[in-house]
Amino acid sequence: MKVVSGGVCAAKGFKANGIHCGIRKNRTKRDLSLIVSEAPAAAAAVYTTNLVKGAPLLVTKKHLENGVARAIVCNSGNANTCNANGIEVAEATCEATAKVLGINPDDVIVASTGVIGQPLDVTPIENGLPSLAAGLTADGSGFAAEGIMTTDTIMKEVAVEFTLSGKTCKIGGIAKGSGMIHPNLATMLVFITTDAAISPEILQRALSTDVRDTFNMVSIDGDTSTNDMVTILANGMAGNPVIEGDGEDFSVFMAALNSVTVSLCRLIAGDGEGATRLLECRVTGADSKATARTVAKSVICSSLLKAAMFGADANWGRVLCAIGYSGAKVDVNKIDVAFSSVAGTIPVCKNGCGVEFSEETAKKILSEKEIEILVCLNSGIECSNAWGCDLTYDYVKINGDYRT
Amino acid sequence: MKVVSGGVCAAKGFKANGIHCGIRKNRTKRDLSLIVSEAPAAAAAVYTTNLVKGAPLLVTKKHLENGVARAIVCNSGNANTCNANGIEVAEATCEATAKVLGINPDDVIVASTGVIGQPLDVTPIENGLPSLAAGLTADGSGFAAEGIMTTDTIMKEVAVEFTLSGKTCKIGGIAKGSGMIHPNLATMLVFITTDAAISPEILQRALSTDVRDTFNMVSIDGDTSTNDMVTILANGMAGNPVIEGDGEDFSVFMAALNSVTVSLCRLIAGDGEGATRLLECRVTGADSKATARTVAKSVICSSLLKAAMFGADANWGRVLCAIGYSGAKVDVNKIDVAFSSVAGTIPVCKNGCGVEFSEETAKKILSEKEIEILVCLNSGIECSNAWGCDLTYDYVKINGDYRT
Repeated sequence: MKVVSGGVCAAKGFKANGIHCGIRKNRTKRDLSLIVSEAPAAAAAVYTTNLVKGAPLLVTKKHLENGVARAIVCNSGNANTCNANGIEVAEATCEATAKVLGINPDDVIVASTGVIGQPLDVTPIENGLPSLAAGLTADGSGFAAEGIMTTDTIMKEVAVEFTLSGKTCKIGGIAKGSGMIHPNLATMLVFITTDAAISPEILQRALSTDVRDTFNMVSIDGDTSTNDMVTILANGMAGNPVIEGDGEDFSVFMAALNSVTVSLCRLIAGDGEGATRLLECRVTGADSKATARTVAKSVICSSLLKAAMFGADANWGRVLCAIGYSGAKVDVNKIDVAFSSVAGTIPVCKNGCGVEFSEETAKKILSEKEIEILVCLNSGIECSNAWGCDLTYDYVKINGDYRT
Repeated sequence: MKVVSGGVCAAKGFKANGIHCGIRKNRTKRDLSLIVSEAPAAAAAVYTTNLVKGAPLLVTKKHLENGVARAIVCNSGNANTCNANGIEVAEATCEATAKVLGINPDDVIVASTGVIGQPLDVTPIENGLPSLAAGLTADGSGFAAEGIMTTDTIMKEVAVEFTLSGKTCKIGGIAKGSGMIHPNLATMLVFITTDAAISPEILQRALSTDVRDTFNMVSIDGDTSTNDMVTILANGMAGNPVIEGDGEDFSVFMAALNSVTVSLCRLIAGDGEGATRLLECRVTGADSKATARTVAKSVICSSLLKAAMFGADANWGRVLCAIGYSGAKVDVNKIDVAFSSVAGTIPVCKNGCGVEFSEETAKKILSEKEIEILVCLNSGIECSNAWGCDLTYDYVKINGDYRT
């Protein structure tokens, strides 16, 4: 497996583009993206578990009932959620997209991100689609990635190459993260494409399995969005024998998918609203996978720990505190904690009690951009990682006045 | 029932004091408090559910097995948690307290608050106790309230007077709040005293029942502390017939207790770390008490909503979002939301969709110090309140460098 460029256009037969159509006032910011497969593709998706669901998710869910899609259309600047005419607008978007591409509206996946509860005018979308479609290219992944950004500060795309039964395949994705990020059985907006041949059922299984240890283990602020969606298109143009069940090819595909999703998780967490540091909590020695996940996510979600990390303060008591209230059954007298970064590793807690350490060394380690919080429960062999970011002045600033 | 002064010394037979004994470096900040009842008192307590528990809680739990106590001793500046010799230090503190008061160490309740995982030296406590005890007075509640403060900016005390079977009784309390506040079946440090006569069993039932709708409905930052404790002493010196079960006297006592605890909740929430506003979420029309509580607490805990309230931004989509991911089963198409303060009330969402409103009026309402978020689920008659505060630059500042 090797990292390649191209994002959602790395795989054969995919084109993408992103433009400013007029949903956002700032004319320099792209606000409408399109990803299209030359051939019909097996399609799978996972959605937010929030009871308040964005209208685009409901429409997409219906369109994916047959496991096949051709295009993904997504606007930023407005979530099209909690609007009386939301479904209508999402369907009109799919129809307009289908019309310019000459495909069936049922083969269009639609997504929206932005402010909740403000009616979305479909006119700029309808007016923008012809030029958006005309500009589709095999190197347009970056434009599409820009078009779905909200408070993101960096464009997020990744792709890898791998081999299935002798055939070279590629898989790549783009994502938008930043705020209202605390996915639960689904996630923020992530669009993945692959030219591997795989049946819709197995593709859905691959995605649903993968997100449990990737996007579901990311938290920026504890708020599970109403519009979270991860979707994947597999158009089979790599020419490998179709994956229709378990086996070596499925394992290789899962590893490639995981490589893309973990990279996107790290990009999303490191670019959380206002973030200055990427935090990764690595839990080992757990008696079950569930315990490992619960502990890792609880640590990464602690506002107090996040603020301490912003200050590069080795306040490990907050790690113990977050483990203690996580709900996981752990023996607190067996917990070891260390902080780690490229500058080194420093143990700070052994068997649930503090150990002496150099504050100076700890400060140096915690002043890096990527911090690992290493937790060993010393009670088994299961492990789990979770990703998040520090809590900063800028998070407050961004969200103190998001709408205006 | 009427509000009176005196805090934990309002009730007959209670004296209190607080001094600087040397745990904190800042010599102007009191760090050791003592509350003493002239007569043995019925005693009850509730504790944190965090698996990592402060050593003082374990010692207190043992001392309260017989339901009787005489004194409460509490230090700030060090939580005495995650220390190898924590139990030893907590017991030595009780012994030193018992010695200066001439009482049994088993009749002492001990509590600590401050940094986790730094050994607590008992020497300054032992050295300070004689002068602390010598200074006990019937108007010392304020000194005791100061002695338990950490990042609190205001001293928190309250008391009310009520009548049981013709006898005038009083009940009062002090609290410390500010950070790591998200109680679960127990709470931050709260000490309550009353001269009402009530059996230990009924006193425990009164307290355990009350906290479900008071301290358990407060959240500053979602972090459930390792040292949360609410304890109450009832010395019976008001001379009322001992309350030993249900009945009118028990109801009157519960109402008086609730009046004190709700006041302390509001004081704690409004003085959350870095807070500029007290937030109160009032949920009505729920199909069950559990739903009402879950929804109210989810709204009050949302980082995004808290930041929006800091910016006086009427971003009601964040209220809907927090209700949707709360886990409560609600019909999102029936939800009404309004914001309210002394400046007025403004409906912003009806039946799950936005309604037009004046941004100017909303800004004026949300710029007040105390904000109510009114949520009606239109599905039943149950209701619940939760208390919290806005998320501010100062919360980040305080917690970015708490230890140093």
